Amino acid sequence: MWGKVLQKVRDKRSRVHCITNYVTANDCANALLSLGASPIMADYSGEAEEITAACSALCINMGTINADRAEAMIRSGMRANKLGLPVILDPVGVGGSEMRKRTAKRLLENVRFAVIRGNISEIKTLALGVGGAGIDADLKDKITEDNLKEALGFLQSFSQKTGAVIMATGETDYIVGEGRACAVKNGSAKMSLITGGGCMLSALTAAFAASHGDMLEAASAAAVFWGICGERAADRMKDSDGSGSFRAYLIDAVGTVSELDTDKMAKTQLYDLKEGARCI
Amino acid sequence: MWGKVLQKVRDKRSRVHCITNYVTANDCANALLSLGASPIMADYSGEAEEITAACSALCINMGTINADRAEAMIRSGMRANKLGLPVILDPVGVGGSEMRKRTAKRLLENVRFAVIRGNISEIKTLALGVGGAGIDADLKDKITEDNLKEALGFLQSFSQKTGAVIMATGETDYIVGEGRACAVKNGSAKMSLITGGGCMLSALTAAFAASHGDMLEAASAAAVFWGICGERAADRMKDSDGSGSFRAYLIDAVGTVSELDTDKMAKTQLYDLKEGARCI
Amino acid sequence: MWGKVLQKVRDKRSRVHCITNYVTANDCANALLSLGASPIMADYSGEAEEITAACSALCINMGTINADRAEAMIRSGMRANKLGLPVILDPVGVGGSEMRKRTAKRLLENVRFAVIRGNISEIKTLALGVGGAGIDADLKDKITEDNLKEALGFLQSFSQKTGAVIMATGETDYIVGEGRACAVKNGSAKMSLITGGGCMLSALTAAFAASHGDMLEAASAAAVFWGICGERAADRMKDSDGSGSFRAYLIDAVGTVSELDTDKMAKTQLYDLKEGARCI
Repeated sequence: MWGKVLQKVRDKRSRVHCITNYVTANDCANALLSLGASPIMADYSGEAEEITAACSALCINMGTINADRAEAMIRSGMRANKLGLPVILDPVGVGGSEMRKRTAKRLLENVRFAVIRGNISEIKTLALGVGGAGIDADLKDKITEDNLKEALGFLQSFSQKTGAVIMATGETDYIVGEGRACAVKNGSAKMSLITGGGCMLSALTAAFAASHGDMLEAASAAAVFWGICGERAADRMKDSDGSGSFRAYLIDAVGTVSELDTDKMAKTQLYDLKEGARCI
Repeated sequence: MWGKVLQKVRDKRSRVHCITNYVTANDCANALLSLGASPIMADYSGEAEEITAACSALCINMGTINADRAEAMIRSGMRANKLGLPVILDPVGVGGSEMRKRTAKRLLENVRFAVIRGNISEIKTLALGVGGAGIDADLKDKITEDNLKEALGFLQSFSQKTGAVIMATGETDYIVGEGRACAVKNGSAKMSLITGGGCMLSALTAAFAASHGDMLEAASAAAVFWGICGERAADRMKDSDGSGSFRAYLIDAVGTVSELDTDKMAKTQLYDLKEGARCI
Repeated sequence: MWGKVLQKVRDKRSRVHCITNYVTANDCANALLSLGASPIMADYSGEAEEITAACSALCINMGTINADRAEAMIRSGMRANKLGLPVILDPVGVGGSEMRKRTAKRLLENVRFAVIRGNISEIKTLALGVGGAGIDADLKDKITEDNLKEALGFLQSFSQKTGAVIMATGETDYIVGEGRACAVKNGSAKMSLITGGGCMLSALTAAFAASHGDMLEAASAAAVFWGICGERAADRMKDSDGSGSFRAYLIDAVGTVSELDTDKMAKTQLYDLKEGARCI
């Protein structure tokens, strides 16, 4: 199943417009190219809409936001909606400033997102309009077996409110839509030792969303694939290697992990949310 | 011949001002340093001219353009012209928006370029003021044996119109000036799997142009050298390697490919355009 | 001694706000993460102060400065001062333009820095308000055994004037405060073959300053540690490796060099400046 979605993504070679931060723009572009997609990074409000219109998906990343970049996000998001293109939101550090909260609010009011991906603390900030400790997941907000039902219910409410699939990533990733959820346990702890892990996943998710119509499946497949890339990269680590090498191995893996690997290595659990998070 | 030009570039250690995009700025800086040159990245209109005046060449890259960066490009370009410094234009994705086309038009009207480097689709957009599918080469525009004479004629016309050497890069690179052309067949298909391959070549070309007065030879030598760097990097690829590792190997190669390698591995064909693309 | 400071830095996992350039922002973020710190890159004047207030240190890097980034630097610097957070200044290329000199002047007038790190030419430009050849150390300004006493006196005067520890880095790094100085001879010549070596050291110094109250010791420990990282990275270089691989090895080393390594490999000389640069 996940391998087939990956196959479609690689076959389609979608053009993905990223309005993103300058810290990890290079990583996002290289990850998309490694996947076979075609990235376009452009963030000026005076041209963003036009670039979006020539692409198959849009990824909005709030990392190094400023006034003009925010304007470009709104315009491109609205244009993508008109054209029926999937829009992914990565609300990096949304709790970090009033300006980020205002921008996120404006984005949620004006743009219909296909997928919203963040750590649980960013998602909570978006959903509740409060709190959040910035870009690192707030440990108090961690989803565990004990609070799983409640957490999935919370994420489903936010999904219903926005119409977007909600992708709360962490040690386990939870992808939640109307009535359904998917938990993805792939990944490596080393992924949190580099910058851009979340940004790259959001960018890749845009390519998946451009190729597969069911957004819950597309986002889940992206999370499975990315987690396996992390495992593959971690397997290559030698004693002298650290996060500089890991970063290269991770982007390598995006090009070398096969559809078969993806099917064989996937660790997922599907939930039916209509009856209170019943395992399927 | 090509090795001697490379030797001059490495000896001169030119300071190169890059007004470039934030996606590949790090790669461009590291490639220039690896070559022995000294990169300065500065894109603010309030200082760009002054920075240019302290350098030996200027590379203008339209990658993540905005209004102020465009202004800096115009001012620095004009200042470089006054000082007699070579200016390289990399019209990244020029067909992607009206703003890019307007900026390119303004640049061509106000700045005399030593070399213009792009894929054939970008060059066509510049020359004809229309079309172009963005940053990827438009396959319909591919130069083949069948349309070679016509293509070289077209590029020569654009060279005559602008006074610049035109460098249309792809599987084979074509470098065209008044009456002469050079085809470079070095390179590796893997170079298109990373972002920044074109940007780095443009930046390196600026260093070559700062050290060797014949622009056709300087640009051709840069294309030969860069292609060989790609071949060297591709040779190092192991099964588990992908584009993350390739990127590092490519920048490595800029420092390790020797003048002798360059002479021995060069695959070039010179053309006399006065008699209709006759091989020399 | 140096190992213990490093241990404190790794234990504290400080959040560091970087207002920095887009050329090396990714490297700075990854170096901080590799150290165990938590980087936040944000440079918009409309939110910078607020971000600073949630961090333990601020690193101001003038690399790709523009008008708004300069404004963010001033506001964040003043806020950090009010909150008692250490502020590090990296005056990249300060001699390169009038705008950089004006911004540096404004920063020195409005912000109290804990540490100012640059090459000797940048430090001289700051201290004297003149000269300087841009981002590369001016060789005429090199500190040698012959001019050591004079140079340390000069740096001490600037330290007294600003209240900051002055960190003039080069083949040997000199860290100078009131009455004391430390020379650090760790490092590798290969560190000057990549972009971002100085930027990363400044960012790491911010994390050290957040964890250890004596700024001369904190900055010296950062210089020792970074130099050893360079040595470790250089040791890994194979024949085919160049600056692309070195960059990854360097960031690797930030995570793998131990406290014990740091104590064993440190090459430092302390000076008492009260009696004219007497070795301690």
